[in-house]
Amino acid sequence: MTRVVADFATTVLDDPHASVCVGLSGGADSLALTAAVVRAGLDVTALVVDHGLQEGSAGVAARAADTARELGAAARVLEVRVGTRGGLEAAAREARYAALDAARDGRPVLLAHTADDQAETVLLGLARGSGARSIAGMRAWKAPWGRPLLRVRRMQTLAVCTELGLAVHHDPHNRDPRFTRVRLRAEVLPLLDDVVRGGVVDALGRTAQALQDDNDALDAWAGAVWGSARTVDGLEIGPLQDVPRAVRTRVIRRWLLDVGATEPTNRVIAAVDRLGGENGGAQVAIGGDPGVRTVVERSGQTLTVRLTER
Amino acid sequence: MTRVVADFATTVLDDPHASVCVGLSGGADSLALTAAVVRAGLDVTALVVDHGLQEGSAGVAARAADTARELGAAARVLEVRVGTRGGLEAAAREARYAALDAARDGRPVLLAHTADDQAETVLLGLARGSGARSIAGMRAWKAPWGRPLLRVRRMQTLAVCTELGLAVHHDPHNRDPRFTRVRLRAEVLPLLDDVVRGGVVDALGRTAQALQDDNDALDAWAGAVWGSARTVDGLEIGPLQDVPRAVRTRVIRRWLLDVGATEPTNRVIAAVDRLGGENGGAQVAIGGDPGVRTVVERSGQTLTVRLTER
Repeated sequence: MTRVVADFATTVLDDPHASVCVGLSGGADSLALTAAVVRAGLDVTALVVDHGLQEGSAGVAARAADTARELGAAARVLEVRVGTRGGLEAAAREARYAALDAARDGRPVLLAHTADDQAETVLLGLARGSGARSIAGMRAWKAPWGRPLLRVRRMQTLAVCTELGLAVHHDPHNRDPRFTRVRLRAEVLPLLDDVVRGGVVDALGRTAQALQDDNDALDAWAGAVWGSARTVDGLEIGPLQDVPRAVRTRVIRRWLLDVGATEPTNRVIAAVDRLGGENGGAQVAIGGDPGVRTVVERSGQTLTVRLTER
Repeated sequence: MTRVVADFATTVLDDPHASVCVGLSGGADSLALTAAVVRAGLDVTALVVDHGLQEGSAGVAARAADTARELGAAARVLEVRVGTRGGLEAAAREARYAALDAARDGRPVLLAHTADDQAETVLLGLARGSGARSIAGMRAWKAPWGRPLLRVRRMQTLAVCTELGLAVHHDPHNRDPRFTRVRLRAEVLPLLDDVVRGGVVDALGRTAQALQDDNDALDAWAGAVWGSARTVDGLEIGPLQDVPRAVRTRVIRRWLLDVGATEPTNRVIAAVDRLGGENGGAQVAIGGDPGVRTVVERSGQTLTVRLTER
């Protein structure tokens, strides 16, 4: 695992002795990552987020920080307050990333997501139909976040901890079947692996990589079209007309986000796409607040946004 | 379901009274499709393939043909011989499509794949990591094959058969857990649906549609690059250099198929891609027969194929 991390520092961070932070929970994955990053010769600060959601979480965080120091890293505990918006998992994740970002001090933050986590993410995105973007899973590098262990199995991180005699914290949330992700991990993936006779985690990882490449290419194409379609008045229809639907819908999605829509659904994007074609209807509602609604209208060869009273 | 088929005839076949064939097994899906196609006002010939793999298959085929005639369709039974290459399922599918193609006499062939079949196909492609192309599932139209029921659930086809009092044949293969697809249907999809609290079949269908759009766009881009990269000598590196990896690998895949490689793996495609970059090594083996092997080599700014003796 040390070599995986060293390769990551050389090829992705472009500096084998980079100064980095590591997100540390005290679980096997992030403890093994911390150890590997130290041994790979990087300058490491472990950031331990205390979500304050479970009894004794402060003690767990303090022990994780101590273990990191014993391994040769600097360590800091970050206390966060988790809201409830969008569910507990999502709120905890948002608070965690915000705290890590605030504490990283210009350094990249390495996260310990493994091949198993990636497989769960891909399958979850697929099962929810949330589009190619989420099936593509997590990126190995999206500044400032780095994930050197995306091809390492969870079993390997456990083996590293055992080998080094590290005290691993077992988060009870990781076994709570009320969490969708826990059931994917404990029930769906093992069954699917059995049904296709093995290799599912690797297969999902390969798929994620291929779809990331596809998304990069389509985003590049959409970016070029965006440059000629976006004007101060709205979105010009002309540049959209001769490009494939996958590109048009990406440009439209970007425009809707640009004019303030919150994560437009595929249904809304498709309706706006039809506005730009023949017989597309008069307008499409894209959201709004009590009292006003926001609509996209076609005026000549331009799509525009207008607020209307309800 | 009649309306779904009528819409399909109008929008996809561009002829509400088209003359079509329907692939009929005698199961609920294809019986319901045959009934719907007749009632939608198309001119229908049901093609019943007798694979000769199960005791009494000739009787099943004859009864399905009779039912089709009672519904108002013409009907023919096609006897095929199934080999064993690539496994029983694959060999039976290949023989079936070949027989339908030989018998269709210039007409499109409508197939009864449902939303449930699509979900199984997507999940199977994903679990095997066989790439974006297979996760994109089956197409609603790829001449001469049409699939009007891709958004119809299997339960609805059963309901149609019950309503019309049709005698449905239950293929024992559809319950045999030795088939991967049967276990996906009977075990994995219901579990996954439970874990994400419903909607999995629709979600997989939406994903398939989105990925089909993505693939169409990337294939169009790759096609344009292909036009300038493919020469009589081989594949020019120049046109590949400034395009994203997803496009490069598609062009390379097409070239390898063009020069006679049989379905190159992602590993081989990636190795050929590296040949075109810096430090890519000298050559990549892409297959061959006993005694010779086929290699791709770089010579200057061109990738070429050469046969070498072992």
